[in-house]
Amino acid sequence: MPTPGRGSSATPGSAGADALCEAALAGDRRALARLLTAVENRTPLAEAALRRLHPLAGRAQLVGVTGPPGAGKSTLVAALIAELRRAGRPVAVVAVDPSSPITGGAVLGDRVRMQAYASDDGVFIRSMASRGHSGGLASATTAAASVFDAVGFDVVLIETVGTGQSEVEVAAAADTTVVVEAPEMGDEIQAIKAGLLEVADIVVVNKGDRAGAHRTAAQLHAMLADSRGETRPGRPAPKRPEVLVATAATGEGVAELLASIDRHRTTGHGADGESARLHRAEAQVWSVLVDRLHDRVRALEGAEELDGDGWSGAGEWLRSVAAHETDPYSAADAILEQLIGRRVAPGPNE
Amino acid sequence: MPTPGRGSSATPGSAGADALCEAALAGDRRALARLLTAVENRTPLAEAALRRLHPLAGRAQLVGVTGPPGAGKSTLVAALIAELRRAGRPVAVVAVDPSSPITGGAVLGDRVRMQAYASDDGVFIRSMASRGHSGGLASATTAAASVFDAVGFDVVLIETVGTGQSEVEVAAAADTTVVVEAPEMGDEIQAIKAGLLEVADIVVVNKGDRAGAHRTAAQLHAMLADSRGETRPGRPAPKRPEVLVATAATGEGVAELLASIDRHRTTGHGADGESARLHRAEAQVWSVLVDRLHDRVRALEGAEELDGDGWSGAGEWLRSVAAHETDPYSAADAILEQLIGRRVAPGPNE
Repeated sequence: MPTPGRGSSATPGSAGADALCEAALAGDRRALARLLTAVENRTPLAEAALRRLHPLAGRAQLVGVTGPPGAGKSTLVAALIAELRRAGRPVAVVAVDPSSPITGGAVLGDRVRMQAYASDDGVFIRSMASRGHSGGLASATTAAASVFDAVGFDVVLIETVGTGQSEVEVAAAADTTVVVEAPEMGDEIQAIKAGLLEVADIVVVNKGDRAGAHRTAAQLHAMLADSRGETRPGRPAPKRPEVLVATAATGEGVAELLASIDRHRTTGHGADGESARLHRAEAQVWSVLVDRLHDRVRALEGAEELDGDGWSGAGEWLRSVAAHETDPYSAADAILEQLIGRRVAPGPNE
Repeated sequence: MPTPGRGSSATPGSAGADALCEAALAGDRRALARLLTAVENRTPLAEAALRRLHPLAGRAQLVGVTGPPGAGKSTLVAALIAELRRAGRPVAVVAVDPSSPITGGAVLGDRVRMQAYASDDGVFIRSMASRGHSGGLASATTAAASVFDAVGFDVVLIETVGTGQSEVEVAAAADTTVVVEAPEMGDEIQAIKAGLLEVADIVVVNKGDRAGAHRTAAQLHAMLADSRGETRPGRPAPKRPEVLVATAATGEGVAELLASIDRHRTTGHGADGESARLHRAEAQVWSVLVDRLHDRVRALEGAEELDGDGWSGAGEWLRSVAAHETDPYSAADAILEQLIGRRVAPGPNE
C-alpha cells in the first residue's frame, strides 16, 4: 500500500507514465488517448502523469459549453471546432456523456463528429462517462482538460448538459463559460435556463433562424441586466455576459461567438480569470483529498468489501446505520477516530 | 470549535433541536418546515436533529421519481399524491429544484401544487435547491427524506431531473426508483433515457394518450430484456423493471403505478432492498466524513478565507497549484500531512 501524506513523487506507475507523457508531448495521439483513459479510470498511472504534466499546463483557454438538452450544444461545439481550425488553432473537446450514469459509453453524435476530424492532428475529441462517486465527474473532466492543456492545445472546449449540479459546476469551472439556449422551450427547461444564466460569461441563443430567437435574446438581455446587480459569492462583481444569436447548423454567428470567447480570454484574465483558476485549483486539490480519505477508509478492516464500486472497511458501522441503530454522524465520527488512531499508532516517526 | 471524532451526542444546537424534533413528531408543520430548512442549510441544529431522528426512521418507503426534462415528472408526482391521499396514506415530497445551481428558489409549479394541499396534514411538499459543494445535494435530500420518514410519512417521493450525475444518484438511492419517460423526444434526450433505464425499478411511459406511447413502452420493454441479463456491480442480479403506460394529466394508469410501487415495497425488500438501504447508509456516512474533512481543512490556517462558500486554510497551496508551481497531488498530500500532524500534536490522550 502506498503511504499517502508523504508528498513523494515516486508514485506507482510513474515509469510508464513518464514514457507515455513524453510520447503524448511529442504528438503521439495514441499515447494521448491512453493518458486520457487512465485519467478517466483514475489509475495510479494517471496520478503520476498529472504530477508530471501539471507544470506544463496553464496556457490553454478552458471554455465550458453548457445548456439544457436540445439547445444544440454539440452542433455548436462542432461549429466552433470548424471556426478554430480555419484559423489553424489546435482544439480539444471534453464531452461529458449524458447517456449513462453507470456504464458510460459514447454518444453516437460524438463518434460522427470524431470521424470528420480523424485525420486532423489539430483536433482531439474525448467523451467522458459521468460515473463514479460524487465529484468523480468534475475531477476526471478537469484532469482531462489539464492533459490537453499540457500537450499544447490552444483551446479546450468542455461540453456538459446543463441540468445537473455536477455538470453545471464542471462547465462553470472553466475560464470562460458559454451557456447555450434555444428559443421556445417547455416550463422545466425555462426553469433550468434561469439557473444556468448565473454561471454564464457568454450566452448564445442557438437556432437563430427560428421564429422568436431574437425576442428570446432580448428577454435574456433584460433578465441579465436585472439580476447582475449584486456580487456573486466567491467572485468579484461580475460583468454582465454578452448575449449573442447564432445558428450552429449553418455556421451563422459562430465567428462572432469565437470573437467573444477570445475577448473574454483577454479581458477576463483579470480578477475574474484569477478567481476561476483558484476555484479550479481548489476543486482539484479537494478531489485528491477526498480520494485520499476514500483510500484510508477502504484500508480500514480491508477484508470487508461492500461492493466493487463503493468503499468498504467500515461495514459494521454501515450495517448499523442501515438498521437505524446508529446515526450517520456517530458512525462517521467513530470511523474517523479509528482512522486517525490507526494512522497514529503504527507510525514509526511520529 | 466542536471536536469531531469524539462521537459525542452533545453537539451544538441540540437543545433547540430536541424541542423542534418533539414538536415535529407531534405534528407541528411549522416545526417540520424549520427542521427541513436547517437540514438544507446544514446548520449544527440539523446534525443534532438528525442524530435524534435517525432511530425513528426506516419505516417509510422512499420512492425516487426521475426522468428527462419534459417527461412530466411533476404532474405524475401530483397524480401519485392524489392517489395516495384517496387511500388515506400520508405522503411527503422532496423535489430537487432544477432552476438554480447557485441561488436556489422554488419552481412555480411546486408552489401551485403546494396550495392544493395547504389544508391537508397528510401531505408535505418541499423543494430543495441543488447547490453547495459536490455531494451536498445527495446529502441534503437524503437527510430531508429521513426527517419525513421519522415523523411518520408512509411514502416519501423524491423527485429529481434525470440528467445530472448527482440527481440520478439521489433518485437511485431510494428504495424504489421510478423512471418517467415520454414518447417522441430528441436525440440527446434519447441518450439520457438509455442511461436512466439502468437505475429503474419501474419505468413509466407518461403522456400515454399521445401517439406512439405504447410503441415506446414496447421498445423499452425489449431494451430492458436485452440489457438486464448480467449483474449490476454492487447489487445482486436485479429483476427486470416493470414497464407501465400512464397519463398523469388525466390520472389514467396512476393507480396501476401505485400498485406496482407497493409490490416493489413488498418483494423488493429482499436482497435488493437491503442493498438499497446499505447504499443509502454508505452515502450518509460518507457525506458526514467529507464534511468533517472539510471542517478540518478549513480550520487549518483559519485566517485565510478563500471565499464564502469554499474551504480555506490552505490558501498558499491553492495559489501555488493555480500558478502551476505545485501539482494538486503534492498539495493535497501536504495539507493532509499538516492536518493529521496537527491533530496528533495537541491531542491530550493519544
